[in-house]
Amino acid sequence: MAESTRTLLVVSAHAGDFVWRAGGAIAAATLRGERAVVVCVSYGERGESASQWLQGKSLDEIKAIRREEATAAASALGAEIEFLDAGDYPLLESTETVAKLVDVFRRVQPTVVLTHPLADPYNGDHPAAARMALEARVLAQAIGVANSDGTFPTTDEIIGAPPVFFFEPHQPEQSDFKPNVLLDITAAFPMKQKAMECLPAQKHMWEYYTSLAVRRGVQLKRNAGPNLGLPVDTMGEAYVRYYPAVTDILE
Amino acid sequence: MAESTRTLLVVSAHAGDFVWRAGGAIAAATLRGERAVVVCVSYGERGESASQWLQGKSLDEIKAIRREEATAAASALGAEIEFLDAGDYPLLESTETVAKLVDVFRRVQPTVVLTHPLADPYNGDHPAAARMALEARVLAQAIGVANSDGTFPTTDEIIGAPPVFFFEPHQPEQSDFKPNVLLDITAAFPMKQKAMECLPAQKHMWEYYTSLAVRRGVQLKRNAGPNLGLPVDTMGEAYVRYYPAVTDILE
Amino acid sequence: MAESTRTLLVVSAHAGDFVWRAGGAIAAATLRGERAVVVCVSYGERGESASQWLQGKSLDEIKAIRREEATAAASALGAEIEFLDAGDYPLLESTETVAKLVDVFRRVQPTVVLTHPLADPYNGDHPAAARMALEARVLAQAIGVANSDGTFPTTDEIIGAPPVFFFEPHQPEQSDFKPNVLLDITAAFPMKQKAMECLPAQKHMWEYYTSLAVRRGVQLKRNAGPNLGLPVDTMGEAYVRYYPAVTDILE
Amino acid sequence: MAESTRTLLVVSAHAGDFVWRAGGAIAAATLRGERAVVVCVSYGERGESASQWLQGKSLDEIKAIRREEATAAASALGAEIEFLDAGDYPLLESTETVAKLVDVFRRVQPTVVLTHPLADPYNGDHPAAARMALEARVLAQAIGVANSDGTFPTTDEIIGAPPVFFFEPHQPEQSDFKPNVLLDITAAFPMKQKAMECLPAQKHMWEYYTSLAVRRGVQLKRNAGPNLGLPVDTMGEAYVRYYPAVTDILE
Amino acid sequence: MAESTRTLLVVSAHAGDFVWRAGGAIAAATLRGERAVVVCVSYGERGESASQWLQGKSLDEIKAIRREEATAAASALGAEIEFLDAGDYPLLESTETVAKLVDVFRRVQPTVVLTHPLADPYNGDHPAAARMALEARVLAQAIGVANSDGTFPTTDEIIGAPPVFFFEPHQPEQSDFKPNVLLDITAAFPMKQKAMECLPAQKHMWEYYTSLAVRRGVQLKRNAGPNLGLPVDTMGEAYVRYYPAVTDILE
Amino acid sequence: MAESTRTLLVVSAHAGDFVWRAGGAIAAATLRGERAVVVCVSYGERGESASQWLQGKSLDEIKAIRREEATAAASALGAEIEFLDAGDYPLLESTETVAKLVDVFRRVQPTVVLTHPLADPYNGDHPAAARMALEARVLAQAIGVANSDGTFPTTDEIIGAPPVFFFEPHQPEQSDFKPNVLLDITAAFPMKQKAMECLPAQKHMWEYYTSLAVRRGVQLKRNAGPNLGLPVDTMGEAYVRYYPAVTDILE
Repeated sequence: MAESTRTLLVVSAHAGDFVWRAGGAIAAATLRGERAVVVCVSYGERGESASQWLQGKSLDEIKAIRREEATAAASALGAEIEFLDAGDYPLLESTETVAKLVDVFRRVQPTVVLTHPLADPYNGDHPAAARMALEARVLAQAIGVANSDGTFPTTDEIIGAPPVFFFEPHQPEQSDFKPNVLLDITAAFPMKQKAMECLPAQKHMWEYYTSLAVRRGVQLKRNAGPNLGLPVDTMGEAYVRYYPAVTDILE
Repeated sequence: MAESTRTLLVVSAHAGDFVWRAGGAIAAATLRGERAVVVCVSYGERGESASQWLQGKSLDEIKAIRREEATAAASALGAEIEFLDAGDYPLLESTETVAKLVDVFRRVQPTVVLTHPLADPYNGDHPAAARMALEARVLAQAIGVANSDGTFPTTDEIIGAPPVFFFEPHQPEQSDFKPNVLLDITAAFPMKQKAMECLPAQKHMWEYYTSLAVRRGVQLKRNAGPNLGLPVDTMGEAYVRYYPAVTDILE
Repeated sequence: MAESTRTLLVVSAHAGDFVWRAGGAIAAATLRGERAVVVCVSYGERGESASQWLQGKSLDEIKAIRREEATAAASALGAEIEFLDAGDYPLLESTETVAKLVDVFRRVQPTVVLTHPLADPYNGDHPAAARMALEARVLAQAIGVANSDGTFPTTDEIIGAPPVFFFEPHQPEQSDFKPNVLLDITAAFPMKQKAMECLPAQKHMWEYYTSLAVRRGVQLKRNAGPNLGLPVDTMGEAYVRYYPAVTDILE
Repeated sequence: MAESTRTLLVVSAHAGDFVWRAGGAIAAATLRGERAVVVCVSYGERGESASQWLQGKSLDEIKAIRREEATAAASALGAEIEFLDAGDYPLLESTETVAKLVDVFRRVQPTVVLTHPLADPYNGDHPAAARMALEARVLAQAIGVANSDGTFPTTDEIIGAPPVFFFEPHQPEQSDFKPNVLLDITAAFPMKQKAMECLPAQKHMWEYYTSLAVRRGVQLKRNAGPNLGLPVDTMGEAYVRYYPAVTDILE
Repeated sequence: MAESTRTLLVVSAHAGDFVWRAGGAIAAATLRGERAVVVCVSYGERGESASQWLQGKSLDEIKAIRREEATAAASALGAEIEFLDAGDYPLLESTETVAKLVDVFRRVQPTVVLTHPLADPYNGDHPAAARMALEARVLAQAIGVANSDGTFPTTDEIIGAPPVFFFEPHQPEQSDFKPNVLLDITAAFPMKQKAMECLPAQKHMWEYYTSLAVRRGVQLKRNAGPNLGLPVDTMGEAYVRYYPAVTDILE
Repeated sequence: MAESTRTLLVVSAHAGDFVWRAGGAIAAATLRGERAVVVCVSYGERGESASQWLQGKSLDEIKAIRREEATAAASALGAEIEFLDAGDYPLLESTETVAKLVDVFRRVQPTVVLTHPLADPYNGDHPAAARMALEARVLAQAIGVANSDGTFPTTDEIIGAPPVFFFEPHQPEQSDFKPNVLLDITAAFPMKQKAMECLPAQKHMWEYYTSLAVRRGVQLKRNAGPNLGLPVDTMGEAYVRYYPAVTDILE
């Protein structure tokens, strides 16, 4: 597939999630000259903005802050970003939000989709976003499912069956997250680092996710074996491929 | 990786298993100019040779027949073949057989390993072979583990960490076999067909595994989506990747 | 139980599902003189009617076509059929649709219930229909749960605890479908064949589901063992029994 | 199948296990005029005879006591009994014991097999016996597997594929025991009661297993529903069917 | 933690559930001088009041009866009780009910939370209540989530991360309930007995749950080992801890 | 239980495993004045000593080095240490090694047992050691199981039912390791640090396991909630409790 036609779509429950969990994959894609589009279903204005609430900010102010930060982070990763402002804590599943996501899928025509895994006992918004992303991906394939403005898609507008990868939750084992793909993000990591620095309120997370990248890098090297010649400081991100891989070579 | 350095190692419990379950992957490899080596841990002389026992053949005769058939089938696939003659029904796990497999791994230096899945409620020999293959793969990596002749390996002789794929058991759901890789064997299928025809005693299986290849092909197309332009008559084989994939691109 | 009192209820998400996945069980029941009732929760008008959308048909035309086809197929199986027209892609869970299903359960008094399994990563409508069928089955047992017209049921109208079987999804392993019942549909298969032929738009599926019946038949014979004397061309359908079997004999 | 040809084979790790866990099924079979054969792989002389060790009995005395008790209990159930005396705590898996079990399977020609489930974190002997029973059942099907005296079986002597049921372990949830069959043992319970009374050293278990039968009976009635008209004092035993059921009717 | 600050919150789908499944834990807490608060999300007026419907009682009468009984039972356990009257059969998940539960969590400030497990194939109301309890627990932690009257919580009002325990469903194995905590309720059992006797319509359950307490007590002693010196008549309740335990000692 | 009677027994497959994975728990125990005993089933002389093999050391030299290092590390943790020298890569399960472990259990009378988890696709020695530890723990409880010198134990010598915790494998998700206990090792960490420094050949692991302790500490705080007042730099180790906890309080 020509690189220019590759497009990564990332569906993120809150405004910051895509940075911590998929920043490496996004930067790796844009470094290759591919397109990357992030959709934040909510701003994380209620559930993930405690410090701003404690500062007495209003709901609208908080949304604006989160939007600005996320926009800067996406920019640091070379990605486009959109916001659905569907509300958080709880992020409610709705036909309206799914319909908006169907439009996004048809407009963006992703070749790869990233989203949250389907279980997270610490944050119900994450699996809610994932369920809507998965549902929208299936609906967007069907020529009988109208766009959100009531028009029907053309055959060019419906999508194929892009593979879906779940990115890593905060407590992977508790979320039944068993990675089956370890992604080398060594070259992309400086961009991820810059994107993380766009989220100053969560400064303690910078180190946490750097340390996680080292850890996943160690595992990546272990699974690659010594023959691949990976450098000592390989950095990684962990993913779960949801549908079977389709391939013409086992490797 | 240069194609000429790719080597597929297939560890098969009985002499016929590799044909039905992995013939497509083997032929696809040799069609690309890669090396493929099949190791049959036993001949399947007791458990999978009922018709020959009913004809009054002796144990040695049956082993010879199975060996000849398997050799012909490997040849039809373009693969080399070796026999460990470790006995079947039951195929007992032993340090001796594992040591022989360690030698094979070090000599062959596989870049990919195929074997049976770890559960099969209908045939305990299959998981026994798989457990020994997995154990040998780990032992062959260690410079402190001697070769079977008591010498110690050099750093060139120990192996890396080649990925392992489990091929499909006869009753996949009962064996908890959930494929995460669907392999396109369309181009390789005529060679698999020829290899199956080297096993005349199981003629009824020819059609069964052809039908299975069609079925896995339909699923492959469904997971690939319409955009990949796969032909209507795509044929497939299903695999479970045992260790996480290591990659620098999600696709 | 007298055969005349046996009644099979099949809850199908879309108009065609019951044919491919449970046609054998339905025909086997009506061949024994039992009653069989199919409820299609939707017509599958958006998600499973691509060819008709491409022909420029209207929504109402497509529903009519699907209804006609499904009615013919049910008739070929000797079954009655009802349509709830609850919409598809997505098939939304609602108290209204559940209430209609409660009425159906109370009116039909099924002795056995068939529906979709609870997971299907390729089609969310299928598990949605199954969840509603299971919920309705429980509600229909309770004398305190009103009928949809607001009246309360009599003790004759509430139902018992009919066993539930899930029929086979299109990609069984990906849907965590591990069959625990293999049903012999050899005698019923010609009727299933006729029912499939009532769905001309999916002609490619006729062969696919015939091949699946052969495959399940082979597994059925393997699990039955040689002693039962099943014919070579035994055809099968696979099911998952959801609740424990209740019996006075282990066999 | 004619009742006179039905034969139940029970493989019990220790001399008492079959009474507590499968006494109802055994009595139900013999009440129907069927044959039932119990094989005790060990006497449970080390691990389940604490009170006799505390009394200073010798190993041989303890074995004799356990043999006598088990023989009486089998008799109370109308069953035959055999002892392999393979040792317990630990009960070691061995080719010798498996070979003896192959002989038993071929001689007894069971139509149904009962044994322990495959996991028990409290007692490794139980799954060891189960693994050997399952292996022997597969080996006994193969005409190429010799009898333990070195002769080869005739086609009459090899067995078919009798269904296997796991009986209930002492701590079911911890042993991942999820019953899928609830057996009505109401009529058989007085015989089970008498069999339990043949094991005076474990008098506290009499009440425990009576209470369990009540509990499983309550669940059985719940799963059967009110329509089957089961009596209030229905007694039950729980089982896990290991292989898929083969049937020509869903019920 | 000072005992006076310990508070147990129990979220019960129907008015009687907390008695059968968690009565021992509640009484044990109040016996230690701790506070215990029960919230009944519904009265169980439709699904668990069959005898009253058969007597021709009205909906309001039945609710009143269930309320009165549950209040008496809570009193017998030394607990406070609240009713949300959210309706049952089905108990619908709603933002309104979740918001009420958020208020309860913030007002009560529980140090431990008990509720139903997340699966119950026999009664969908139970997992629905559990899902709402878990969601409310997470929302109540967030300072950005308003109280149900629209005001925002102070830092004193938001809650910490109290551990959650699932109590035992009626058919534990079918509900995938694998206990990881066995609670000694010997001293508390007489109070549980009294509480059960406040529910005269379910007299048959008194004995059933007494027998269950004996059974769980036997398992508790088995897991504790002989060294702890537990009495012969130890009574128990089984729980599943949902989140990892946090501790500074392994014991 | 009086602290002086608490004894921790750690069964480690290789000489270094206990340091990385359980050093915090061991130090925490000895800091409380409890006894801790480590048993290394092998030295890890073949599989985990690559650098020494590359230096041309002999097998005996390597064993001596590993023994010395492990002894120093145990000392740094305040623990006693024993070596069974049962061989590694592969560590074979044997009745002899199990018998030695039975003796250890009876002599040490542990109140808590730590060992490896039961799955590790990267290193079969780890689960082999765990299976032997678990088997020995059960056998050591039985008065009918002789000591390894043929004598029979007294009632004082048999053990109770000490709880078992699995410590963390190198790749937790791939080993199906889902922690249900997070242990605070903040105060013990300096001792673990010193113990790690006794293993100079694996200097790169010092940082890796320090980083892991930080990571588990963050999760520990998240699960504890803010109310417990844990310090920012809390360090943790993750464990899986194998048997249900027995308790008289839910907390």
